[in-house]
Amino acid sequence: MPADDGRKRVVIEGVSPEIDGGRFPVKRTVGESVTVEADIFTDGHDALAAVLLYKNEGDETWTEVPMSFLLNDRWSAQFQVDKVGRYHYTLQAWVDTFQTWRRDMVKRIRAATDADVDYLVGVQLVEDAAGRATLPDRNRLQRWAEALRTSSRAAALDEEMSLLMARYPDRRFQANYPKELPVTVDRERARYSAWYEFFPRSVSPEPGRHGTLRDATAHLSYVRDMGFDIVYFPPIHPIGKTHRKGKNNSVIAEPDDVGSPWAIGADEGGHKSIHPELGTIGDFRKLMAEAKRLGLEVALDIAFQCSPDHPYVKEHPSWFRQRPDGTVQYAENPPKKYQDIYPFDFETPDWRGLWNELKSVFLFWIGEGVRTFRVDNPHTKPYAFWEWVIGEVKNAHPDVIFLSEAFTRPKVMYALAKLGFTQSYTYFAWRNTKWELERYFTELTKTQVREFLRPNLWPNTPDILTEYLQFGGRPAAVIRLVLAATLGASYGIYGPAFELFENRPRESGSEEYFDSEKYQLRHWNLNRPDSLYDFIARVNSIRRDNPALHRDWSLRFHRTDNENIICYSKRTEDSSNTVLVAVNLDPHHTQSGWIELDPEEIPPETHRPYQVHDLLSEARYLWQGQRNYVELNPKIVPAHIFTIRRRIRTERDFDYYM
Amino acid sequence: MPADDGRKRVVIEGVSPEIDGGRFPVKRTVGESVTVEADIFTDGHDALAAVLLYKNEGDETWTEVPMSFLLNDRWSAQFQVDKVGRYHYTLQAWVDTFQTWRRDMVKRIRAATDADVDYLVGVQLVEDAAGRATLPDRNRLQRWAEALRTSSRAAALDEEMSLLMARYPDRRFQANYPKELPVTVDRERARYSAWYEFFPRSVSPEPGRHGTLRDATAHLSYVRDMGFDIVYFPPIHPIGKTHRKGKNNSVIAEPDDVGSPWAIGADEGGHKSIHPELGTIGDFRKLMAEAKRLGLEVALDIAFQCSPDHPYVKEHPSWFRQRPDGTVQYAENPPKKYQDIYPFDFETPDWRGLWNELKSVFLFWIGEGVRTFRVDNPHTKPYAFWEWVIGEVKNAHPDVIFLSEAFTRPKVMYALAKLGFTQSYTYFAWRNTKWELERYFTELTKTQVREFLRPNLWPNTPDILTEYLQFGGRPAAVIRLVLAATLGASYGIYGPAFELFENRPRESGSEEYFDSEKYQLRHWNLNRPDSLYDFIARVNSIRRDNPALHRDWSLRFHRTDNENIICYSKRTEDSSNTVLVAVNLDPHHTQSGWIELDPEEIPPETHRPYQVHDLLSEARYLWQGQRNYVELNPKIVPAHIFTIRRRIRTERDFDYYM
Repeated sequence: MPADDGRKRVVIEGVSPEIDGGRFPVKRTVGESVTVEADIFTDGHDALAAVLLYKNEGDETWTEVPMSFLLNDRWSAQFQVDKVGRYHYTLQAWVDTFQTWRRDMVKRIRAATDADVDYLVGVQLVEDAAGRATLPDRNRLQRWAEALRTSSRAAALDEEMSLLMARYPDRRFQANYPKELPVTVDRERARYSAWYEFFPRSVSPEPGRHGTLRDATAHLSYVRDMGFDIVYFPPIHPIGKTHRKGKNNSVIAEPDDVGSPWAIGADEGGHKSIHPELGTIGDFRKLMAEAKRLGLEVALDIAFQCSPDHPYVKEHPSWFRQRPDGTVQYAENPPKKYQDIYPFDFETPDWRGLWNELKSVFLFWIGEGVRTFRVDNPHTKPYAFWEWVIGEVKNAHPDVIFLSEAFTRPKVMYALAKLGFTQSYTYFAWRNTKWELERYFTELTKTQVREFLRPNLWPNTPDILTEYLQFGGRPAAVIRLVLAATLGASYGIYGPAFELFENRPRESGSEEYFDSEKYQLRHWNLNRPDSLYDFIARVNSIRRDNPALHRDWSLRFHRTDNENIICYSKRTEDSSNTVLVAVNLDPHHTQSGWIELDPEEIPPETHRPYQVHDLLSEARYLWQGQRNYVELNPKIVPAHIFTIRRRIRTERDFDYYM
Repeated sequence: MPADDGRKRVVIEGVSPEIDGGRFPVKRTVGESVTVEADIFTDGHDALAAVLLYKNEGDETWTEVPMSFLLNDRWSAQFQVDKVGRYHYTLQAWVDTFQTWRRDMVKRIRAATDADVDYLVGVQLVEDAAGRATLPDRNRLQRWAEALRTSSRAAALDEEMSLLMARYPDRRFQANYPKELPVTVDRERARYSAWYEFFPRSVSPEPGRHGTLRDATAHLSYVRDMGFDIVYFPPIHPIGKTHRKGKNNSVIAEPDDVGSPWAIGADEGGHKSIHPELGTIGDFRKLMAEAKRLGLEVALDIAFQCSPDHPYVKEHPSWFRQRPDGTVQYAENPPKKYQDIYPFDFETPDWRGLWNELKSVFLFWIGEGVRTFRVDNPHTKPYAFWEWVIGEVKNAHPDVIFLSEAFTRPKVMYALAKLGFTQSYTYFAWRNTKWELERYFTELTKTQVREFLRPNLWPNTPDILTEYLQFGGRPAAVIRLVLAATLGASYGIYGPAFELFENRPRESGSEEYFDSEKYQLRHWNLNRPDSLYDFIARVNSIRRDNPALHRDWSLRFHRTDNENIICYSKRTEDSSNTVLVAVNLDPHHTQSGWIELDPEEIPPETHRPYQVHDLLSEARYLWQGQRNYVELNPKIVPAHIFTIRRRIRTERDFDYYM
């Protein structure tokens, strides 16, 4: 027999959102809401009442929101999260004896089968509620009880009494959903962000000189004026010398080769130090100050691995796998050897010491004002470590953003997102056809995945020069930029390689850049007239001006009769802003076709023309109905980014749009 | 930091089957297997090993089954359940350090980059395993370690050593799936059963005389010879007199009206007594003995409600809702009143007393040899009660079968199945078109629903005479019988109304039978030449002979070019028996069309003809390829039940089929 009261007759199940049975939180940003649904039912035909309860981790008590019945035993309610940090929600439901009685009385009165005893049952319910009520409601309920005692039909049906009764329900046998489901609430930047990655050492104004943090500081306005929110640097720590890689990933470095910033650690220090050739911690502080002045946020790259020269190797030999011959195990993907990199051995008996030290790396840079980290290859370190370290950091600093740089199998990417990463790199770079894009972004924005994974779309990275970009020239870069910036509320590019559409791979079939900045200094001609700088600035400005592009969940694809043309829209919840994007996916040829707008976006009863305004070209078109024609020339601009303006009234020959 | 060891690097998630996070068991019958899948992965690229563990509730220890890798981080294993009762299963997985090393050695040796130190790493692993091994394996492993110490490529690649090592894995950092998931194992009849319902009081050989249990005993061979497994009786308890219902549910009974068997309880007793007009407990025991002799099982109807004359009403007034005027609350669906029925008040403070008494009703009849119960309207009693009482009964008598008679909203029906009902009535009676049938049976047999709900298909019941049966005449009954008996491994009919295709409703628009046996005696002319008796016997015989029809999960629908023709197949796991059914859903007209067999059933490379043998008509047809023609005349037989016989060899002009 249940230890609990067997008279709890209500079932609450099928709660959504609920990630892996409540094991992981759903994610929101400040100001967003959580819409909770559940199957709630009882035996028989009694009426139910249900509430959603939520609280911020700092709150003493739960806030209750009445749930509404939808259909098919499904109930719903929502709450808004207005503080960064953690929330919880749960559900309660009970048999609503008064509403059951009232509903039955309506039927009895309609059929004139109401009997005195039916009213007396009501008297009991109202008197019981009076016993639970405070003054003056108690007196009011007592008066209603007296009225019912006279078998008053008017009293039984009275709306005011019904509302009053709803304030004092009999919740003795209420069912409590047994879980308190978590929500992680981040600041807005977690959901909506434009990232720009560059190598500080390549922005020296003098060709051949190693760029510094001062040069990078001077370069920040270039990034800000292009409209980006976050500037992200590859690791800025001392670079190892042992087994240093040369240009184009050569295993033998020349004496003047600068090495890969991801081979972290040298005599000068490790993950908490600045590479001497870049400057000092003082220079870094000045860079942070300038970024703040410009409204730019700085993201650092956290790559938990060491060069053989990292101080950890001597100080904590147990953090690395020692081989039987006394050497340390370097990174290996047999038969390939990466002798310049020592991975941590997370199976070390001193795993607690290792975890604490790695956590202190985050805290060190947080102490320097950094609030955003791009984490390198998180899928090669234990999941339990990430869940712990992100939890620890966010407990103290809930505004910190972690971007997961995992390009690996889908379940691994989802696992990292679930356990706490704020944003995640995606397969976007390799999704080029309409079918691929529609399928992938439907998975990301219309399934449960959206509750825990926030996509960040990168058309390129220092490691990823896709075939599409290699062969598509400038139009390919434009196409991928528009897709990234409008399909994703968060996106990023690695520049200046991107805006200068650098497209030469190290070798045929490779996705590595030729003369990659990963292994050498580069000097970029930023003033090239064909640079995409202005175009990117325009797209970022469109993003800022159109809140529809600040979120992903409203994404809707529209049918087109040309497989080379993709068409989709996003809109704000209140429909005050709708953005419609059409892109020619073919970087080589003009493509044209009919797009058929989803009736959810443009209702079929819209008989009047409406205006679509291309924010890229400033052209305006009058469209009508579902089907409209587009033609996109990659040599000019292979995309439209329209806002839709619905006509609000017509006076004689003048049209007004809102 | 995890209290647990932070070195447990493997993640186990997405386990299936797992009903509501393990809250409810999956269902199987003896001899069936449970195929368990899970997403299992670790960080990095290490090789994994995983095991499925299971045990019967009586076992001391778990049995381990190695899991196989499928694809996309999905692993699988299965186990067979061979005892009635409860099983549990769970999962464990660990990084397989030896297989990781061996896989890397294969690559190194292939690229000739293998170094002495790589072998020494292997030596360590093999020596560690030797430490875990028992003799003589310990010595064998020591010898392998010595061989590896000489950098022997042959030793590193040796299969025998690899198999030996797999027996002594290093499971120190093994991940344990945190749940032990339950399986309820029933006897075969829970999965595969043909039910026949009749009213004992209507089988008196003399018209007008109240039938008795002795008459029913004599009638059992009629049921057995029609091929049924289970004979099910409406309640056989004393029938109340107060507010007794008359013929055709009239609110005023004539003095000779027999009343509804569901108005349970009178001076002569309640749920543990036999209605005096039916006979005595002695007669019941004789009936049970005769049923056993015939190989028939007896199912009783458990309807937990009382007539006003039930002894409980006086003995336990607190089990009923007392109204303020001192009367007892009768059943009501305002404005309808059912004054002949008092429902139990499950919110009584004495709910424990009520629960225990109701449990004792099951135990009483189990004491009389009953092992199968059809539970009336379970959705009007609390879910917690059913979960408890079914659990209690099955703990002591795991072979008991509970059929849930809930015709209500889908989530409620699923909830009852999840909490323990062995079989469930379904919406089958109202699914008549091809689209409806395909959609519904896909939900029942291809989704997670099949793990907990075993459908039992009834074309009619004493409460349900569907419009399809009202207007379709004898062909409609034939069609619904074939569908029920072949779509469902379990099905049932309410007879003799069914085999005599009684089709007059009480009134137009009603699904109640006219002159329903629920309220009066009926005398049936069982020898009518148009009775479906022989046809039903043939269908039941086909069911028995064809194991493909003993299970539901293999159900597969095939395309047809005529919406009135539905086509589907079932087969045994080993494909030794395949049954293909084609039914004309139109009871009025001959329909013909092409059916296109799913290539999973008939591979497209099947160029040779194959034989389909209609077990109803004994006709045999030679078919070829996917598309074949059928023509079904409802005046003759509106269905084919084929077995497929694939040709095995040809000698000159003679064909041999297996």
